[in-house]
Amino acid sequence: MASSFRYSRRVQFAETDLAGIVHFSSMFRYMEEAEHAAWRAAGLSIAERGGALGWPRVSASFEFRNPLHFEDEFDVVVRLVEVGSRSLQYEHTILRGEVVIGSGRITTVCVQKVDGQMRAVGIPAGIIEKLKDVLR
Amino acid sequence: MASSFRYSRRVQFAETDLAGIVHFSSMFRYMEEAEHAAWRAAGLSIAERGGALGWPRVSASFEFRNPLHFEDEFDVVVRLVEVGSRSLQYEHTILRGEVVIGSGRITTVCVQKVDGQMRAVGIPAGIIEKLKDVLR
Amino acid sequence: MASSFRYSRRVQFAETDLAGIVHFSSMFRYMEEAEHAAWRAAGLSIAERGGALGWPRVSASFEFRNPLHFEDEFDVVVRLVEVGSRSLQYEHTILRGEVVIGSGRITTVCVQKVDGQMRAVGIPAGIIEKLKDVLR
Amino acid sequence: MASSFRYSRRVQFAETDLAGIVHFSSMFRYMEEAEHAAWRAAGLSIAERGGALGWPRVSASFEFRNPLHFEDEFDVVVRLVEVGSRSLQYEHTILRGEVVIGSGRITTVCVQKVDGQMRAVGIPAGIIEKLKDVLR
Repeated sequence: MASSFRYSRRVQFAETDLAGIVHFSSMFRYMEEAEHAAWRAAGLSIAERGGALGWPRVSASFEFRNPLHFEDEFDVVVRLVEVGSRSLQYEHTILRGEVVIGSGRITTVCVQKVDGQMRAVGIPAGIIEKLKDVLR
Repeated sequence: MASSFRYSRRVQFAETDLAGIVHFSSMFRYMEEAEHAAWRAAGLSIAERGGALGWPRVSASFEFRNPLHFEDEFDVVVRLVEVGSRSLQYEHTILRGEVVIGSGRITTVCVQKVDGQMRAVGIPAGIIEKLKDVLR
Repeated sequence: MASSFRYSRRVQFAETDLAGIVHFSSMFRYMEEAEHAAWRAAGLSIAERGGALGWPRVSASFEFRNPLHFEDEFDVVVRLVEVGSRSLQYEHTILRGEVVIGSGRITTVCVQKVDGQMRAVGIPAGIIEKLKDVLR
Repeated sequence: MASSFRYSRRVQFAETDLAGIVHFSSMFRYMEEAEHAAWRAAGLSIAERGGALGWPRVSASFEFRNPLHFEDEFDVVVRLVEVGSRSLQYEHTILRGEVVIGSGRITTVCVQKVDGQMRAVGIPAGIIEKLKDVLR
């Protein structure tokens, strides 16, 4: 039984807004960074150079509990909560120490580019196996 | 019965990513831009200079249906779907012509800064009235 | 003798930082937006879909004179100040009404993608002609 | 004689654009991140919470030599090249291993907020001393 994946980061100045806290849209970037770091930990890349597959998002959500401030150190804990034949759903919790900043979900679908159009395709079994080693 | 508010925009280069489409996190910025434009249309500002109130987000979600590309012209249609005593919920639909790019919701809470802390407070009646004129 | 090109915009919330003003890196995005708008006004696109040419930057600079704030309306005035065989240099002035926010320069080079590598190539004469109609 | 400061980072997906490389404006964010990390290494913060001082930029420039790609690991090497009574100038070199991605300069001025206006003030001696320990 593998555990979740933890990604650590510090808030950068450009990610804050005039309210003095991290702009809400940055949480979605933090979730994505953690997902991509989990892929690397699994020996994969979400965007292999010259690769044929892509992973556009079909849904993304976040519930905000506490603000993050400039220079705060925080963690994003990622879990793989649903594995479909063509899609993956991740659950993310953002924490500053013990304080929950918020949590969210991202669902992404595996696509292949055919004549400039994206077409959903089955996820290669090797990818799921490697991700499961790292993410649950 | 007032109608929804429509905000029009064009995709900028820096909003795309290596997949050749608009980065998913940009949709949340587009939703926010439309919300703030609706406030201006109502004679309001979400961040009055020197003002005491702030509007942090408590939840945000988006369902992606079709990609947006560089230089695409699109509309964000905003509706005010829930008015609480201290919170507002907006519903957003992003369209390129007749094509639905996706739709989402943002819930925001009215706060006052007291000693550097944000405290939820009742939404001034004047704000709700003006918003309703523009948003539903 | 054509004149300069003027691009108009409003400051968005996500472009500000905790200092309460527009983040300095946003000025570079504003300059680029104005450049791309000038291309559109000339009947061109800097990134034709399926096109072979690209325009990476070789240098970019900006001198900051006055801050921009949330919801400020501003103009970017672009001029084409140097036309090389393979490169273009633009000069940009950002103004809020009569107030100079700052000015900068961007030099960009025309490249073709060959086997995943970018190689500088001569600028097609048609592009320069059309740009000159709009930019000087 | 202290040395320069080195900040290490990896390219994130949202920092790329449709050309498949890091957007040029991101280099300015990378330079700033390195500068702020140097301040932390010196036991300082560029934006102390509740602090009176700010550090807006008066000029920023970058010369681009080679592109950065998604997931590239890179370093930003910062040097303090000029210390004025009210301003600091940094020089930054961005490297991927031995490959020079480019180099730039940022000049920043020390200000105090007085009645919502920023006024240039002398840099506290303690700050310069601490920065010099880390940056040259």
